[in-house]
Amino acid sequence: MSQKPSIPKGTRDFSPIEMVRRNYIFDVIKKSFKKYGFQQIETPAMENLSTLVGTGGDESDKLIFKILNSGDYLAKVDKETLSSQNSSLITHHISEKALHYDLTVPFARYVVQNQNDITFPFRRFQIQPVWRADKPQKGRYREFYQCDADIIGSDSLLNEVDLIKMIDDVFTELFKGKLNYTVSINNRKILSGIVKYFGVEDKFEQIVVVIDKLDKIGEQGVINELEAIGLGDIALKMLTLIYSKEFLETEEIKKPQSQLDQTIGMLNWLSRNVNNTEEGANELLLVFESLKKLGLKTAKVIFDPTLARGLGYYTGTIIEVKVENFPSITGGGRYDDLTGKFGLKNVSGVGISFGADRIYDVLLDNNLYPEFKGDSTQVLFTNQGEADENRFLPMLFQLREAGINAELYTEKAKWQKQMVFAEKKGVKFIVSANEHGEMFVKEMKGTDKKPFSSIDELLTIIQHS
Amino acid sequence: MSQKPSIPKGTRDFSPIEMVRRNYIFDVIKKSFKKYGFQQIETPAMENLSTLVGTGGDESDKLIFKILNSGDYLAKVDKETLSSQNSSLITHHISEKALHYDLTVPFARYVVQNQNDITFPFRRFQIQPVWRADKPQKGRYREFYQCDADIIGSDSLLNEVDLIKMIDDVFTELFKGKLNYTVSINNRKILSGIVKYFGVEDKFEQIVVVIDKLDKIGEQGVINELEAIGLGDIALKMLTLIYSKEFLETEEIKKPQSQLDQTIGMLNWLSRNVNNTEEGANELLLVFESLKKLGLKTAKVIFDPTLARGLGYYTGTIIEVKVENFPSITGGGRYDDLTGKFGLKNVSGVGISFGADRIYDVLLDNNLYPEFKGDSTQVLFTNQGEADENRFLPMLFQLREAGINAELYTEKAKWQKQMVFAEKKGVKFIVSANEHGEMFVKEMKGTDKKPFSSIDELLTIIQHS
Repeated sequence: MSQKPSIPKGTRDFSPIEMVRRNYIFDVIKKSFKKYGFQQIETPAMENLSTLVGTGGDESDKLIFKILNSGDYLAKVDKETLSSQNSSLITHHISEKALHYDLTVPFARYVVQNQNDITFPFRRFQIQPVWRADKPQKGRYREFYQCDADIIGSDSLLNEVDLIKMIDDVFTELFKGKLNYTVSINNRKILSGIVKYFGVEDKFEQIVVVIDKLDKIGEQGVINELEAIGLGDIALKMLTLIYSKEFLETEEIKKPQSQLDQTIGMLNWLSRNVNNTEEGANELLLVFESLKKLGLKTAKVIFDPTLARGLGYYTGTIIEVKVENFPSITGGGRYDDLTGKFGLKNVSGVGISFGADRIYDVLLDNNLYPEFKGDSTQVLFTNQGEADENRFLPMLFQLREAGINAELYTEKAKWQKQMVFAEKKGVKFIVSANEHGEMFVKEMKGTDKKPFSSIDELLTIIQHS
Repeated sequence: MSQKPSIPKGTRDFSPIEMVRRNYIFDVIKKSFKKYGFQQIETPAMENLSTLVGTGGDESDKLIFKILNSGDYLAKVDKETLSSQNSSLITHHISEKALHYDLTVPFARYVVQNQNDITFPFRRFQIQPVWRADKPQKGRYREFYQCDADIIGSDSLLNEVDLIKMIDDVFTELFKGKLNYTVSINNRKILSGIVKYFGVEDKFEQIVVVIDKLDKIGEQGVINELEAIGLGDIALKMLTLIYSKEFLETEEIKKPQSQLDQTIGMLNWLSRNVNNTEEGANELLLVFESLKKLGLKTAKVIFDPTLARGLGYYTGTIIEVKVENFPSITGGGRYDDLTGKFGLKNVSGVGISFGADRIYDVLLDNNLYPEFKGDSTQVLFTNQGEADENRFLPMLFQLREAGINAELYTEKAKWQKQMVFAEKKGVKFIVSANEHGEMFVKEMKGTDKKPFSSIDELLTIIQHS
C-alpha cells in the first residue's frame, strides 16, 4: 500500500545546502541581536485559540491554523449546533488550540504572564517558524521563519535608533555593499495628523487602507478610491501632501544635500506647515538627527509618509526594509498597547521582524552567499574491503577527536561510486590504501597523491593544505 | 476585555537563561553530528495526515495533533456523516494536515520524495520540535525537541558503531564524567530468535509487549502475564534465558573481566547455545568487538536482551541510553523498511534520537551546566540624563563595532533601578559619568571605579579585565 509522498502546499523541505545557507542568515541576525543586548526566548508553536483570535483583526483570524481537540472531540457538541453545519460556530467547540501566526502576540502573552520575573525595559529576540493559512504564492509560504527583536517597557526613541542601526549592521554584513536597500520610516501620528489637518479623521482607517495600495493601483487609482469614499477634492490635495510633492518643491529641500539632511528638511517643513503633525514629525526628527550623528554603513534610510503597513497594532514609528523587485524583507514599528488585551496596560514597545525566507531568496538571486567551508565532511576514508575498514577505523576516530569532520565509506562499492559520493558531499580530502597497504591522501580538487604512514602524518598534511 | 493569559497544557515557554542552556545542549549535539558527517535538513511541522497515520500503529495515530482545514471546512461534509457525530469518521473530512509526532516518518517521506537528488548512504541530522497529544506529566511534554541522526541506504554495522561512539562523545562532553549513564543495546533478531527457539513465534508481538513492562510490573508480573497469554511453563524458562541468568552462571562470563568482554562472552554463549539467535548475536558481536578495539570514553555499553522499545519499526539493533531516576534520554535502532510505505523498498537505515528536553532536566538536576559567558550584555552605559545619552551613544556603537555586546539604559530612571537592571541581566561592566562629565567604568562584581577619557581607553580596560 504505497502512496506518492508529498507535503502540504505552501510548506517546504530544506535540503542540506539550503540549511547551511539558512543557518548563515540566522547566525548573522542572531549575532547582531546579541550585540544590541537582546535575549532569546521561545514560546510554544501552539497557543490557546483565545490568545490568538481578535488580536490582529478578522483578516488575521482567518489566517490562523486551528488544531482539532484530541479524542472524541464531537461528543460534547450538541446536536443542534452540529446540524447547523456552521463552520465558524462549530470551530470554537472542537478546537481550543492553534498555531501562532506571528511572534508578537505570543511575546505579549509571555510578557504579561511573566511580568514579575522580567526586568524592564526587556529586550527579547525570538527566531521561530510561524504559520498562516494564506494563499501560497511566490515568496509567500504557509510556514516560514520570523526573526523578531522587540524592546518592551520603554518609550524612548533611542530604541528606534538602535533597531535601525541594527538593520544597517545586518544588511551590511549580508549584502556586503553589493545590493541597494531602502529603510523606509514613517510615524503613524504623522499620517493621522495629516488626515486630521484635512478634517476627515473619521475616515482615517479607510484612508490608510487606500494609501497602502499605492504600489498596486498607482497614484490615479488612489485618488479615485479616496474620492469614492467621499473625500471629493480633498483627495488630490491630501495626496499631494502625503506623497511629498510639496516638500520637494521647497528651496531648503531641493538644494543638493545628503539623504538624511533632505529627510530632516522634510520633517521640519511638515512640522511647521501642517498642524497636527508636530508630534510625529518631532519623534522622527529625533531619530533621524541621531542617525546623522552616529552615521550609517550602507542603509539608505528615508522618510516615507505613505508607509502604512496595514492597520495592525502600530501607534508610532513604522519601519519597512525593501530591495528592488522583492516584497518587504523586514518590518516593524512601535505599539502602545500590545499587552492590554492580556491585562497589562500602558506598556509601550517597539520591534522589528526580519523575514528570513525572503532574505534567503534575495541572497540567492543576487549570488551573495559566501563559500561555506568546514561545515560538511572534510575527510573521507575510502573502503575497498575489510583491510581498509580495519586500517582506517581507528584513524577515523582520531581525526574526529582532533576536531575534523570525517567519515569512512561504509559500503563495499566501486571506486567510482565512492568518488561520486565524495564529490556530491563536498569532501575536501580522500584517503585510500593500495594492495600493499600503503596509504595516501589526496585533495579532491587536486591531483597530488601524498603518501603517509601514521595518523600524525595524515593530520599534518590535512592541517597544512 | 482582558483575560488571564496561559499556554496549552504540556507546552512551555523558555526564558532567556533556559534558552542559553538549551542552545548549549543543541550546540554540543550539533557539533558531534557534523563531526560524524551528518548533514542537516528540516521538514515542515505540518505533514499531510495520510503521511503520518498508519505508520506507527493505532496508538501513535491517537497521539497526532490534527489541523482543521481552512475556510468553510464543513461545507463539503454530507449531512448524514455529520449527524453520526462520529469523531474519527469525520476527522478525515475536516482535517488534511497534522503536526509531525517524530522526525523519522517525515525523514522517510523526504528520502523517497528526493531520492534522485540524494547520494546514499545519506547521513542526515534534524533538530526540530515534535508534537504528541500525550497525557502531560513530569518529563513528558506535548511539544518537545528531538535531535535525530540517521544513516539511510547502508546495512553496514559500522554505522551502529558510529552512533554508539557519537553517544559516548556527546555525553562525555555534557556529563563531564560526573554522571553515570548506560547505553543498552539489543537486537530485535535475538528476541525473535529466542521466541522461535521456544516455538511460540506466533505470539512474538504479545511477548514483546509484556517483556517491555519489566520496569513497571517486575519479574513475577512478567511471568504471570506470559502465562496468561498461554505460554505455560515456557514462560519461566524463556524469562530465565532472556533475563540473562543462565549466561551469568557460565564460567567464561562469571570470571572477572571488562564490561565489554563480559558482553562479548554472553553473545558468544547465546549464539552457540540458542538456535535462531546466531544472526542477531553475530551482528552485535561485530559492534561490541569494534567498540572494544576503538575504546569508549565514559559510556557503559551493555547488552540487554530485554530491551524492546515498543514494537515500532525496528528490525535489528535497538539502542537506549539511561541515567538513574530518569526515563530514556536517547534511543534508536535499525529499521529495514521505513520508506516502504512511500514506495521505496529495501532501504535499510539506522538512527538515534537525543531527547533534548530530558537531557536538559538531567543536566539541571545534576548541576552540570557550565558558567555561560559573553552571551548576554557585557557593558551597560548608565543614563542620568541627556548629557549621558549624547556622551555615550557614539561609544555604545563603537563598542558593538568592536564585537562587544553593549547597551545604553534608555530610560530616565534612578541609579538604583539601573543597577537592579544590570544585576538581573548579568552585565559585567557599568559605565557612568559624574556631573563634571568625567567618565568611569566599573566591574559589576568589583568596587574599583576606573576613570577613562576616550573610547580607546575604555576598550583597553574592558578587554584586559
